[in-house]
Amino acid sequence: MNSLKELITKVKKNDFTLGVVGMGRVGLPLALVFANAGVKVIGFDQNKNCVNKIKHSIAPFSEAGMEELLGSKNFEPVFCGNSLAKIKACDIYIVCVGTPLTASYHIDYGQLFSALDIILQSPLKGKLVILRSTVPPGTLEERVLPFIEAKTGLKAGVDFGAASCPERMLEGHAIEEIVKLPEIIGGFNAISGDIAVELFKKINHGKKILRTTSKSAELSKLYANMYRYVNFALANEFALLAEDFGQDGTEIINIVNYEYPRGGIPRPGLVGGPCLTKDGYFLLSNTAFPDLILLASRLNEFMPQHVVNRLRLKMAEKGKVFHALKVGLLGTAFKGGSDDERYSPSVKIAELLESENVVVVRHDPHVKGTESFQKAVKDADVVIVATNHPEFADILPRIHKLRKKGSNCIIFDCWDMLDKKTAEKYGFDYMKLGSK
Amino acid sequence: MNSLKELITKVKKNDFTLGVVGMGRVGLPLALVFANAGVKVIGFDQNKNCVNKIKHSIAPFSEAGMEELLGSKNFEPVFCGNSLAKIKACDIYIVCVGTPLTASYHIDYGQLFSALDIILQSPLKGKLVILRSTVPPGTLEERVLPFIEAKTGLKAGVDFGAASCPERMLEGHAIEEIVKLPEIIGGFNAISGDIAVELFKKINHGKKILRTTSKSAELSKLYANMYRYVNFALANEFALLAEDFGQDGTEIINIVNYEYPRGGIPRPGLVGGPCLTKDGYFLLSNTAFPDLILLASRLNEFMPQHVVNRLRLKMAEKGKVFHALKVGLLGTAFKGGSDDERYSPSVKIAELLESENVVVVRHDPHVKGTESFQKAVKDADVVIVATNHPEFADILPRIHKLRKKGSNCIIFDCWDMLDKKTAEKYGFDYMKLGSK
Repeated sequence: MNSLKELITKVKKNDFTLGVVGMGRVGLPLALVFANAGVKVIGFDQNKNCVNKIKHSIAPFSEAGMEELLGSKNFEPVFCGNSLAKIKACDIYIVCVGTPLTASYHIDYGQLFSALDIILQSPLKGKLVILRSTVPPGTLEERVLPFIEAKTGLKAGVDFGAASCPERMLEGHAIEEIVKLPEIIGGFNAISGDIAVELFKKINHGKKILRTTSKSAELSKLYANMYRYVNFALANEFALLAEDFGQDGTEIINIVNYEYPRGGIPRPGLVGGPCLTKDGYFLLSNTAFPDLILLASRLNEFMPQHVVNRLRLKMAEKGKVFHALKVGLLGTAFKGGSDDERYSPSVKIAELLESENVVVVRHDPHVKGTESFQKAVKDADVVIVATNHPEFADILPRIHKLRKKGSNCIIFDCWDMLDKKTAEKYGFDYMKLGSK
Repeated sequence: MNSLKELITKVKKNDFTLGVVGMGRVGLPLALVFANAGVKVIGFDQNKNCVNKIKHSIAPFSEAGMEELLGSKNFEPVFCGNSLAKIKACDIYIVCVGTPLTASYHIDYGQLFSALDIILQSPLKGKLVILRSTVPPGTLEERVLPFIEAKTGLKAGVDFGAASCPERMLEGHAIEEIVKLPEIIGGFNAISGDIAVELFKKINHGKKILRTTSKSAELSKLYANMYRYVNFALANEFALLAEDFGQDGTEIINIVNYEYPRGGIPRPGLVGGPCLTKDGYFLLSNTAFPDLILLASRLNEFMPQHVVNRLRLKMAEKGKVFHALKVGLLGTAFKGGSDDERYSPSVKIAELLESENVVVVRHDPHVKGTESFQKAVKDADVVIVATNHPEFADILPRIHKLRKKGSNCIIFDCWDMLDKKTAEKYGFDYMKLGSK
């Protein structure tokens, strides 16, 4: 008797328990969406503090619409250290742990193998393992399955099922996108894929399903992110070219895109965050064609240094001492509207400045523990708009009002968010990325 | 009295003559659209044969909707060699000559300076010169205007007007797009821009006008083309990666794009043509950030060699002698639906094969002088679908029918146009770009 066939029947009847391993920005929203759709979900995490917060319906990070879903009766958060019975109770596991880069830019599979060790505490026969973390292509077939088979003696696709179903939602819109986006399902074999399809249909019966191989599913996530990353790099290359030619890069990009069928160039700016920054390394971890993506990475990762370089030149022009500056940094999250500082280019700007003895006062309305807006701007020599939070659109009069020294200060706008003329009216010296 | 002010009045009243210099793929459609809108147009060209063809209402190249406009009573084609009176008669000149690359990849300004010499046979005072050719940024201000000022003693912006209004239509859709697309107008000064605006409004009163500096106008054209070129390169990088991972690149790209708000990855394929190929060099002719674009160029220009390399490996696998092959090349134009072979990657494939003694029979339904379909495929060892002409979508049964040897033949599909299963049903050995 094929126990995977039993599993598919159980999923169809909603007579099963889903285990989501990893309660981070990928796992928690996914677990809550499943619970909200009527699936019994247990969420596992190694961080006791995080599990406790979730138990008390406190969101450990911000995500639109997530708070309302915490406290669902179908959802139980569990600390991994003491959870054997709960592990046993699950029929399907979705692995949503982090796959960070090490300091030497190699992929750290530590959390992934820990997650598998936790799952393998209880017999896997007749169950399904889904890999949702972003991983180098081939990870399910070449790393996860050999690891499980060696530890258990079970055979993938026969004794237990396996599939790659990559996460690809936009942070901040996770809840909405998990429900709405087509689901890419890369089953290790047909029955594995069939079970995964039934599972994801629970979220939204009309959800579009795109079936492929597990390797292609893993690649698809990386292609999507690299497409964005390379285009941001190109926009940044255009911005640097415009600076060189003494023109305004964002203005030119707006002109190109305006009612043009072949437009769509993104705006230049600081690019970062955990996905775009590291996914290139995933894609290129074992291949011969790394050029375009690695180069995009070099360009994007250089942008914070470029901001610092332009400030240094500006200070030299003014005859001021660079390392005696005080800088107010507006925004530390890696993108507008987010509270996520991982791989943030804004933080990189702060670190680069601090490494040259510049005093940096960081303010981010979304990030707890940063300084107040007032403290950041009131006596700064330079104010850098580093993250494109919508709250920063109207800061010029606010900065003007708060300053004891008057408006004698440089505003460096990394996102073309402020109006040059207005800034100059207030007496600020306005600089922006993509225009000298 | 300001004679440029007089010119603007004349343009408003449609009491002026427009000279279009260069009757190629940019100039001729533009001249005809103006004439069709009621403007008196003289079209100049150095190629007597081309001028004669146009005089007899024969289109020298194919462009949708163009033939109907030839023979307009407002349009007069003139051979440059004998045209002083006609030159004199013009109030505004639009320069639409070619700016090709030399064999050593430098820009050849020869045609541009010849065009200026022709214009300067008659006094330029009170007239306007518009640069429409694609040029390196700064060409109007740093090359064209100093040349004119030195030759005439006139002052740009005062004695005569000047503007950069880059062409940016899609070949094959020129007529439609000249009317519809927003016009980018980079006046050397305000009055120059004002006259150019009045001029282009004649084409379509509702035409959107985007005004900027002449340098930004020149940059905008290059940004638009490089945006496409780099994205084609990225799609090609994805295709090569998929081949490496043993997956199907176009399938993955389709999956990523399907109902995905951050999709839009182009299909991989052969990239070429006069614009995309050379514009990168224009953009980078005097700048310090050439990396991403030059690399894209390296990748795109390598694709024909990649096709040849895969064929060579395939022959080695089969134990066949590569240089004894006969190849039927389907498509020689640089893109589907076009008859333009300039910088065509399909031609490059043919040349690479021929350089290794392979016999290549070229067929293109749009390009005069190429062989028949039958001749190309009937006894070929390999048929390469090199250009994505829509006519090639249903060739499998046609090839099958025509072959004396039966279907024992490799089909190499550079555009994922054909169905692998159908090809195999006919007994062909099917290969495609982006999947091994």
